[in-house]
Amino acid sequence: MINKLVEKIQKTGAPIVVGLDPMMKFVPEHIQKKAFSEYGETLEGAGEAIWQYNKELVDHIYDLIPAVKPQIAMYEQFGLPGLAAFKKTIDYCKEKDLVVIGDVKRGDIGSTSEAYAVGHLGKVQVGNNFYRGFDEDFATVNPYLGSDGVNPFLKVCKEEHKGVFILVKTSNPSSGELQDRVIADANRPLYEVVGEQVAGWAQELMGDTYSYVGAVVGATYPEMGKVLRKVMPKSYILVPGYGAQGGKGKDLVHFFNEDGLGAIVNSSRGIIAAYQQEKYAGFGSEGFGEAARAAVIDMKEDIAQALDAR
Amino acid sequence: MINKLVEKIQKTGAPIVVGLDPMMKFVPEHIQKKAFSEYGETLEGAGEAIWQYNKELVDHIYDLIPAVKPQIAMYEQFGLPGLAAFKKTIDYCKEKDLVVIGDVKRGDIGSTSEAYAVGHLGKVQVGNNFYRGFDEDFATVNPYLGSDGVNPFLKVCKEEHKGVFILVKTSNPSSGELQDRVIADANRPLYEVVGEQVAGWAQELMGDTYSYVGAVVGATYPEMGKVLRKVMPKSYILVPGYGAQGGKGKDLVHFFNEDGLGAIVNSSRGIIAAYQQEKYAGFGSEGFGEAARAAVIDMKEDIAQALDAR
Repeated sequence: MINKLVEKIQKTGAPIVVGLDPMMKFVPEHIQKKAFSEYGETLEGAGEAIWQYNKELVDHIYDLIPAVKPQIAMYEQFGLPGLAAFKKTIDYCKEKDLVVIGDVKRGDIGSTSEAYAVGHLGKVQVGNNFYRGFDEDFATVNPYLGSDGVNPFLKVCKEEHKGVFILVKTSNPSSGELQDRVIADANRPLYEVVGEQVAGWAQELMGDTYSYVGAVVGATYPEMGKVLRKVMPKSYILVPGYGAQGGKGKDLVHFFNEDGLGAIVNSSRGIIAAYQQEKYAGFGSEGFGEAARAAVIDMKEDIAQALDAR
Repeated sequence: MINKLVEKIQKTGAPIVVGLDPMMKFVPEHIQKKAFSEYGETLEGAGEAIWQYNKELVDHIYDLIPAVKPQIAMYEQFGLPGLAAFKKTIDYCKEKDLVVIGDVKRGDIGSTSEAYAVGHLGKVQVGNNFYRGFDEDFATVNPYLGSDGVNPFLKVCKEEHKGVFILVKTSNPSSGELQDRVIADANRPLYEVVGEQVAGWAQELMGDTYSYVGAVVGATYPEMGKVLRKVMPKSYILVPGYGAQGGKGKDLVHFFNEDGLGAIVNSSRGIIAAYQQEKYAGFGSEGFGEAARAAVIDMKEDIAQALDAR
């Protein structure tokens, strides 16, 4: 899957992943109305609304981008009908040949981590049959529990040729509370220690040019990104925090390798709710898909310019 | 909910939570057979099997214990039908007046963490209506992303009078890889730094005698438990790792306060798969519920003896 991701990034020229995080306030009223008229103002209605919203978004952008990243929390909040919409979204994106990164931030230990890995990336045995629960191509993983929590994911990744992005330095303001603390015997911050772990895991699970084991490093911390880029040379870095969270094109260059590869930048509301921005307001709420397409094109240009200028 | 948990612990005399982690290899064959004959060897069949297994377990132990802790990964691995069994299990346990601790180990940032909090502990708005997605009483939370990830849970807990258990020192062998590292400017290991954060959050959200904000500390690290008990005096400590993972009754005393409260010890396979142990083999696989009941009574006795002996 990492090979496919790299190829698609090269083909589209867009190191971009669109975060499918369908908060209700982003879903245009006409879509909500239609879903509620069929299913009522129920969890099923909410699930239908976010699914229809996602589908139209994907139809407008799938040819421009290599990957999408549905954030499972935004579906899980609507209970089972929300998770049904998550699954439908994954399946549809894969039909459109997009690489699907499940932003699930799971992490547990031993057989429990294995169950998450199986549910999201692998197949589970029932009697004599095998089934795929959610079947994303990549999953994000939380490293706080140590390698007991990560290894079961790596095992499934190896079997399935799928990958993970491990949280190293997250994009949020308080990420430093733990991640930036300097570890005494290493004389380095915690995020670097985790980055070194990632580099080790990455070596064990190489694709053609990059590893199946990637990392999450926020666009909001470009200087740390620069360091981590060197610590984890073979890992793709998934970079959230562009756009709405404050990261800009010029902040992104440090996350890329000399080959122009090695990073994929996420934007969620900046794309999927572009129609709510002044810049794209002309598309109207009925034109939210076209607005998203225009925002993808602008983002691609912003990143390309920044990379050219370095 | 923390008040209810404390009351129920006092009433039952059992500071015990039973982990409902239904791995297929624990589910007796006659239950699997019946479920598969109705639904086939499908994800739905697996969901039905684990639900029937849970139901019979709960029927045999609900009067002895204050709480259960379903581990969502064990359901999530079976996709949507697995999660439907998770929801059914929660609802049934609440019908039986058990406190339900959702072992979900979620953790993200801002609106995303809020979505998890809403989905598991709160209610979500759809049009003019409000719905509860999974509706546990407590959830476990991963602290790696800092207070941005925890605060949205605390907000929902405040509104709903529900609680969280924050991962501080987990029970697994590799938990020390990050959690035990000494933080230079604090001269204390990371788990203590997190413990201090928990103590701060706990003060902001007090119940009658204990806080709505608890912590997870593994039975496998009793010396660290001793320290953390003092660092977080008002937090209930959820203690995994008893039994199958190697923790013993005498290891547990450090997790309790002088008042005999402050800790709740989890056992999963030691209870739910007791019938597979030599000690309880006499019950047979048809008697797995009775075996679980006997194992709960023995565990209660083991802990009581250890507390008496201190």
